[in-house]
Amino acid sequence: MKSGLHFLIAARQCEIDELDQLARTSELVGLIGRLVHALQRERGMSNVFLASRGRRFADQRDPQIAECQALEQAVRNGFDQLETEARQRASAGNSARLFSRIAWVLPGLDALPALRGRIGALELAPAEATAAFAKLVAGLLAVVFEAADGATDPEISRLLVAMFNFMQGKEFAGQERAFGAATLALGRSNEAQRVQWLHLIESQERCFHVFTDFSSDEVLALWRESEADATMAELERLRRVGTTLAAPAASPDAQYSQLSQNWFDCCTRRIDAMRTVEDRLAADLRALCNRKTAQARTDLEAYQQLLGTLAPQSGGALFFDDAGTQAVAPASYGRVLERSVLDMVQEQSQRLQAMSDELQTVRASLNERKVVERAKGLLMAHRRLSEDEAHKMLRQTAMNQKRRLVDVAESMLAMADYLPMPDARAPR
Amino acid sequence: MKSGLHFLIAARQCEIDELDQLARTSELVGLIGRLVHALQRERGMSNVFLASRGRRFADQRDPQIAECQALEQAVRNGFDQLETEARQRASAGNSARLFSRIAWVLPGLDALPALRGRIGALELAPAEATAAFAKLVAGLLAVVFEAADGATDPEISRLLVAMFNFMQGKEFAGQERAFGAATLALGRSNEAQRVQWLHLIESQERCFHVFTDFSSDEVLALWRESEADATMAELERLRRVGTTLAAPAASPDAQYSQLSQNWFDCCTRRIDAMRTVEDRLAADLRALCNRKTAQARTDLEAYQQLLGTLAPQSGGALFFDDAGTQAVAPASYGRVLERSVLDMVQEQSQRLQAMSDELQTVRASLNERKVVERAKGLLMAHRRLSEDEAHKMLRQTAMNQKRRLVDVAESMLAMADYLPMPDARAPR
Repeated sequence: MKSGLHFLIAARQCEIDELDQLARTSELVGLIGRLVHALQRERGMSNVFLASRGRRFADQRDPQIAECQALEQAVRNGFDQLETEARQRASAGNSARLFSRIAWVLPGLDALPALRGRIGALELAPAEATAAFAKLVAGLLAVVFEAADGATDPEISRLLVAMFNFMQGKEFAGQERAFGAATLALGRSNEAQRVQWLHLIESQERCFHVFTDFSSDEVLALWRESEADATMAELERLRRVGTTLAAPAASPDAQYSQLSQNWFDCCTRRIDAMRTVEDRLAADLRALCNRKTAQARTDLEAYQQLLGTLAPQSGGALFFDDAGTQAVAPASYGRVLERSVLDMVQEQSQRLQAMSDELQTVRASLNERKVVERAKGLLMAHRRLSEDEAHKMLRQTAMNQKRRLVDVAESMLAMADYLPMPDARAPR
Repeated sequence: MKSGLHFLIAARQCEIDELDQLARTSELVGLIGRLVHALQRERGMSNVFLASRGRRFADQRDPQIAECQALEQAVRNGFDQLETEARQRASAGNSARLFSRIAWVLPGLDALPALRGRIGALELAPAEATAAFAKLVAGLLAVVFEAADGATDPEISRLLVAMFNFMQGKEFAGQERAFGAATLALGRSNEAQRVQWLHLIESQERCFHVFTDFSSDEVLALWRESEADATMAELERLRRVGTTLAAPAASPDAQYSQLSQNWFDCCTRRIDAMRTVEDRLAADLRALCNRKTAQARTDLEAYQQLLGTLAPQSGGALFFDDAGTQAVAPASYGRVLERSVLDMVQEQSQRLQAMSDELQTVRASLNERKVVERAKGLLMAHRRLSEDEAHKMLRQTAMNQKRRLVDVAESMLAMADYLPMPDARAPR
C-alpha cells in the first residue's frame, strides 16, 4: 500500500513526463517553423516563376525545393517519434487533437511533389499555387497551435503562444507579399482588393500584438531590430501606392513591373529578418524546457531522499491537528519530518492549482482563433461548404461589414440556434 | 514514415487510452462515494456516542468501523492501481493534480485508527471528532473534484460534475445533521449559530442545484423520490425550531434531547436515501464509460480496416483540390477512398474541437470552488494561516457580510495586489 509521500512523488513524476513531452513537442515546433519558412520562400519563388512564365527563379527553385525536402523529412521524423513515444509513455491530454492535426497535414506534404510538378510545367496560375502553399502552411501552423493549446506548463505555454502568433503573423506577411506583388504588377486595384489588402495588414498586426504581449524584453528588442527602419518605410510607401492605385492601366507597363519587384524584395527582406526572431524563440523554448525539467528532477530527488528517511505510513499522526483535535504524540524528529511532508503536499497542491489557473489565462489568448474555427465548422455543417469556402465566406462578411473576423464569427455562433440544419446527420 | 491515416488512428487510440483511464477513475469515484457515506455514518455515530458519554451507539460503532475499513482498503487499492497504470500507460493531463490530492488524503486515512482510539476512550469533544471526520471527507471529495476537472470527455465530465456536487451537497447535509443535533440538544441558538446553520443549508442547496443542472431526467426523478415528503416536512419543521430557539434553557431538558434525537433520525433517513441517487450516478457513469469505449473501439477498427485497403502515402493527391487547383488525377475507386480519409480527418478534428469546447463549458461550473480555493491559498500565504483557519476566516467574512462565500473570495482575489506579502519566500 502506497503512502502519501509516494503519491507526492508520483505527481512530480507526472509533471516530469509532461515536461519531457513538451520538450519534444517544442523541438518539433522549432522544426516546423523552419519548414514553414522554407515553404514560404518556395511559394514566393513559385509565384514569380509562374508569373514570369518560367523566366525568373528557374535556377533558384531546385535548391529551395531541396531545402524544403530536407526539412520536411526532419518534421516527418519528428511526427513519427512523437507518436512512437506517446504509445510507450505517458501522453499529454491533447495528444488526440495534436495527432488529428498531423493527420490533416500529412496528405498535404504527400501532395507536394505533384504540386511542384505542375508548377514546373507552368500548369497553374500564380494565385492557385499560392493558395495551395497557403493551405499547407495553415495545416502546419494548426499543429503548432495545438501544441500551444495543449501545453501543461504556463511558462512554456506562454512561449508557444508567442511563437504561434509570430509564425501566423509572418504567414500573413507572406500572403501579403504575394497579394501585393500580383496587385502592383497589374497596375490597378479595386475596392475589394484594397479591403483584402488592409485585412491582411490588420491580421498580421493582431498576431504580432499577441506575440508582443507574451514575449520577453530581449525578444522584443530583437524584433524591433529585425524590422529595419528603411525596409519598413519602403514597405509602408509601397502599401500606400498599392492600395491607392486608381486608374486601371491599359496594359501594365515596366513601371508597375518594377514596383512589383521592389515590393517583393522589400517584403522578402522583412520576412527573412523575422527568421532571427523565430530562431531566438525556438532557442528560448528549448532552454526553458531544459531548465524546467532539471528543476523538476532535482525536486523529485529531494522527495525520494525524504521518502527513504520516513517510516512507511507516517505523516498521518498530524493530519487532524488542525481539525480541532489535540496532538496525538509529543514533538519529535519524526514529527517534524511528518509536518514537512504535509506542508510539501499542500505546497504542491497549491502550486499545481496556481499553474492551472495561469494556464487558463494564457490559453484564453487562443480563444479568438477557436471562435473562428467554430464558426467555420458551423457554416460547413449548415451550408455544406468546404473549409476554404466557409473561411472565404466569413472573411467576405467581415470585409463587407468592416468588422473583425472574430466579431463576425462570434455573431454567427450567437445566432447558431436560428440557423436551419439542412443536414440530417447530426454530429456525433 | 507514417501516413495521415496512421495519425488518424493514433488520435483515436489516444482517445481510447483516455477513456480507459476515465473508466478507472470513475470506478474509483464510485468507491470513494461509498467510503464517504460510511465515514459520514461513523461520524454521526461517533458524535452521538461522545455526546452520550459512551452510552448510545456503543454496539453499532464497531460494525460501522469495520465497514469503513473494508471500503478504505478498496479505495487504497484503487489509488495504487491508478498510479501503477499511470506509470505503464498514457496518463491524462491532470494526473499530477489527482495524485497530489491523493497524497493529501492518505495521511488522513493513516490517522483514522488513532482518531477512533481517542473517540472510543471518550477523549474528544463531539465537535472535535466531527471536525476531524469532516476534514477527511473534504480530502476525499477533493480527489473526486480533480477527477471531474480532469476528465477529457464532456459527457463523462458532466456526470462527474453532477456526482461531485451531489456528494458535496450530501456532505453539507451531514454537517448540518451534526450541527443541528448539537444546537437542538443545547436548547438554544444565538445569532452566529443561526447564520451558520443557514449557511450550511444554502451551501447544500447550491450544490444540489448544480447537480440538478447536470443530471438526466431519470436521475432527477430518483432524487425527487428519495426526498420523501414526510421526511422533508419534518426536516424543515426542525430547521425552523432550531433556528428560532430564543430563550436559553437553563438546563437542556428531555424535550430538547428528544428534539435533537428526532432531528438526527430525520437527517439520517434523508442522507441514507441519498445513497440510492449516488449509486445510480455511479452505475450511469460506469455504463457511459463502457458505451464510449466500445464506440471508440468500433471506430478504431473501421479505420484500421480502411488503412489496410489504402496504398501507403495515399490521400495526398486531393489535398489541394479546394485550394484553387484542379484535380490531379481522374476519379477512381482509390480517389473516393482518399476523399473519405480527408473527410474523416476533418470530421475528427471538428469533433475533437467541439468536445474541447463543450468540456470548457462543463468545467466552468467547477470554477466557483476554484475561486474559493485560490482565495484560501492567498490568505494562507499572506497571513500565514493554516488551510482550516483560512477557510474559517473566509466563511466568517461571508456570514458577517451576508454574502456568498464565492463572492467574498472573488473580492479578495480582486484586491490581491493590495495585500502585503509578509513572507519573503516567493512561490516558485
